Amino acid sequence: MSTDGGFHVGVLVFDEAEELDVVGPFEVLAAWIEHSEIKPHVSTFSLDGGGVRLAHGLRMVPARSADDVGPLHLLVYPGGWGTRRLLADPGHLEWLRQVRAQTPIIASVCTGALVLAAAGLLAGRPATTHHHHYDELAEIDPSVVVDTEARFVDDGDVVTSAGISAGIDMALHLVSRLESPAVARAVREELQYDPDPPV
Amino acid sequence: MSTDGGFHVGVLVFDEAEELDVVGPFEVLAAWIEHSEIKPHVSTFSLDGGGVRLAHGLRMVPARSADDVGPLHLLVYPGGWGTRRLLADPGHLEWLRQVRAQTPIIASVCTGALVLAAAGLLAGRPATTHHHHYDELAEIDPSVVVDTEARFVDDGDVVTSAGISAGIDMALHLVSRLESPAVARAVREELQYDPDPPV
Repeated sequence: MSTDGGFHVGVLVFDEAEELDVVGPFEVLAAWIEHSEIKPHVSTFSLDGGGVRLAHGLRMVPARSADDVGPLHLLVYPGGWGTRRLLADPGHLEWLRQVRAQTPIIASVCTGALVLAAAGLLAGRPATTHHHHYDELAEIDPSVVVDTEARFVDDGDVVTSAGISAGIDMALHLVSRLESPAVARAVREELQYDPDPPV
Repeated sequence: MSTDGGFHVGVLVFDEAEELDVVGPFEVLAAWIEHSEIKPHVSTFSLDGGGVRLAHGLRMVPARSADDVGPLHLLVYPGGWGTRRLLADPGHLEWLRQVRAQTPIIASVCTGALVLAAAGLLAGRPATTHHHHYDELAEIDPSVVVDTEARFVDDGDVVTSAGISAGIDMALHLVSRLESPAVARAVREELQYDPDPPV
């Protein structure tokens, strides 16, 4: 792993990925750039480089394809209904295992963890996913130690978050871990992330 | 205002709109659809219908243009650096005043409030914006009663939220107000929105 040219983050997008799974972490990590001394680069990419239609219909054009995104230091893998197809696609799971072997950190959001599990990447590890899918995660790989309490689980080279909005908290944690709590707090301040759910 | 055919929500997108300003409320309002009995329709639209490049480079293709989005019950107006250009564009401000006259609720996120103020839509009203821009809001229209404490300000037909992530809280409030707290809680539960900032 080299950080020549900065720290490279790739946010994977695919058809029916959940909108906030993608954009919550993207926003945090992109805001990190302005506060960072380690020069993160943050790109979206799709497997074939083409545009995608997310879970609620939002259409997004990624910056790159999987072939041209280059070596990553951090891969963000979102959830959403599109994971149904991907976790049953042996070719995709093989691609993910290859990426895993070259990528220091893989971080899933929500049901992205189900695909990581299907690829064998969570075997014997603690992990979490969307709270409606704990059982499914355990069914895909019974050796996963499913954490039903955590907002996110940092197991070093594999980090998993709970459902949808939890990707924001996970991304702030990653900024804190990868650079410093002070920089993560600066990102939080910029995003005015003092959440106060009204219901 | 007719609700024949459902409740129509339009989320405006423009170049350099802030990513999470757009997708935070979009996610909440799109998730609302699945829990609602009042049939909300949620569309993104850009002024000319073309694709946009958001503040941190995310490229989005909206569903519609301003001309074909049709009458709205709720307009969501995001913030971001793109507001600089829009608040200095007399033609855009006139468009916004015309939309205002036909739209029961306009809800801004972050610095979207600056454009509403420049169009005269916040005159004499309580409102909020991103916490770095309270002074600018008061300079644009000194009659605005700037609320520097609120996560969002609901002034009936005009609702404004604080910076970036506050759009999520505002959107949940709108679901609660427009349908019920129980439905808003169901959306919150689906998004697993139990935020816990780690820094």
